[in-house]
Amino acid sequence: MIELVGVDADDTLWHNEPLYTHRREQFRELLARYEPEGLLDDHLYEVELRNLRHFGYGVKGFVLSMIETAIEITRGRIEGRDVSSIIDWGREMLASPTELLAGVSEAIESLGEQFPLVLVTKGDLLDQQSKLARSGLAHHFKGIEIVSEKDAGTYTSVMARYAVEPRRFVMVGNSLRSDILPAIEAGAHAVYVPYEMSWIHERVPPEALANVHYHEIAHMRDLPTLLNRLDRD
Amino acid sequence: MIELVGVDADDTLWHNEPLYTHRREQFRELLARYEPEGLLDDHLYEVELRNLRHFGYGVKGFVLSMIETAIEITRGRIEGRDVSSIIDWGREMLASPTELLAGVSEAIESLGEQFPLVLVTKGDLLDQQSKLARSGLAHHFKGIEIVSEKDAGTYTSVMARYAVEPRRFVMVGNSLRSDILPAIEAGAHAVYVPYEMSWIHERVPPEALANVHYHEIAHMRDLPTLLNRLDRD
Repeated sequence: MIELVGVDADDTLWHNEPLYTHRREQFRELLARYEPEGLLDDHLYEVELRNLRHFGYGVKGFVLSMIETAIEITRGRIEGRDVSSIIDWGREMLASPTELLAGVSEAIESLGEQFPLVLVTKGDLLDQQSKLARSGLAHHFKGIEIVSEKDAGTYTSVMARYAVEPRRFVMVGNSLRSDILPAIEAGAHAVYVPYEMSWIHERVPPEALANVHYHEIAHMRDLPTLLNRLDRD
Repeated sequence: MIELVGVDADDTLWHNEPLYTHRREQFRELLARYEPEGLLDDHLYEVELRNLRHFGYGVKGFVLSMIETAIEITRGRIEGRDVSSIIDWGREMLASPTELLAGVSEAIESLGEQFPLVLVTKGDLLDQQSKLARSGLAHHFKGIEIVSEKDAGTYTSVMARYAVEPRRFVMVGNSLRSDILPAIEAGAHAVYVPYEMSWIHERVPPEALANVHYHEIAHMRDLPTLLNRLDRD
C-alpha cells in the first residue's frame, strides 16, 4: 500500500535543463570573443562544483559561477556590459514560462485523486515556488519540500514529516543520483523517468546501479498504471 | 494556551544585519575608487528592491545586486578583479560563524522544554539551514520553515501545516514588517524583540502600527516569562 508519492520537479514535471544548456551555449559564444580557444565547458563545470557547497543549486549560483568563470578565463578582461548580460540571463531564466512535459498534467491530476502527492525539489526557494505556482499543478500537491540536497537523510526527513513508513513511500524523478539512489537507500521505492538530457553532476556510474531495484518508465503518463500496480502489491 | 511558537532567525537568534552593513561599507570603499561622489547607498538599495522579486532575500541576491550596482555606477568600468572581490565577500558572508545574540541559547533551551518551536525565516535555503546547523540550536526546533516571503498567507500556511489555530500561535522576531504585522494579520500573537539595527526594507511607518496589539521585550532572555504568562491567559 502506497501512502505518499514524492515527485521531483525540474525535468520531471517541467523542462529545465534546456534553459541551462541554452545559456551555456550563449556563455560560450560570449567568451569566444575574448578567448577563442578556451576549454570552457570543463572550466564552468569546475567552478559550479566548487561553488555548490557555498551557493547551492539553482539559477543564482549558476549566474555567479558563470561570472567567476568569465573573469578567470579572460583574466579579468571581461567587460561590465558582458557581466550585465550574464545577470540578465539569470533574470530571464527565472522568468521563463514553466513548460510541462508531455502527459504530466493528466498524470498528476489522475495521481492526485488517488494518492497524497508531495513535491520534493532542489534549487532556489523563490524560483521553485514560482515555477510551481505558474505550472497550474500546485493544488494537486499536499506539500512542497524544497531541499538543499537530496540524500538519504533528506528522504528520511520528508517521510518522518508526513509520518509515512519508507515502504509506503515512492519517489519519482529523472535523476538517478538525486531521486532514485538516495530514496532507495532510505528504504523507499523509486520510479525513474529519464529526461532527454541531464546535467553532468546528476549522472552516476553504471556500477552504482548494480543490485539497486527501482522501476523505470518512459513517460510520466505511464506513472498512474505503475503506481496502481505497486499499490496492490 | 499556546500550542506552537514561531521564531525568526536572522537578528532574532543570531547576528545578521552587521554582516551586510560591513559589506555595504566595503562596497562603498571599493566604488569610491571609481566614483568618489556616487550616491551609493540609495542606488544599491534601489537595485536590491528591484531584484527582490527575481532573486529573493539572502546573500546571493545581495551579491548580484552589488555587482549590478557597481556596473551601473561605474558605467561598465568596474574591473574583473573587483567583481571577483564582491563574489568573495558573498562566500565569506555565507561562511561566517553563526554568532548567537546574548541570552538566546538559554531562552531557546528553556522554551523548547515547554512549547513546540518552529523556525520561520526568509533567505537562501542552504544558507539558513547551514546557519541553524552551526548554531547548535537545531535540536530544539520541531520544524524549520524557510519561506520566500513573510506575509499573512505565509503564517496561515505554517499554522495549517502544524494544525494550530491562530490564537494558539505566537510569532517572535525582530522585524515589525515581516514577523509582527503579518502574524497579527493572520490572527496570531506576536512578540517584537528589536535588534540594534535593521535593513531599511524591514522598517514600517509608525501609522502602520496604530491599533496593532503586539508584545515587546528588550531581550530574548525575557521571552520565557512572557510566553508563560500568555500561556496562562
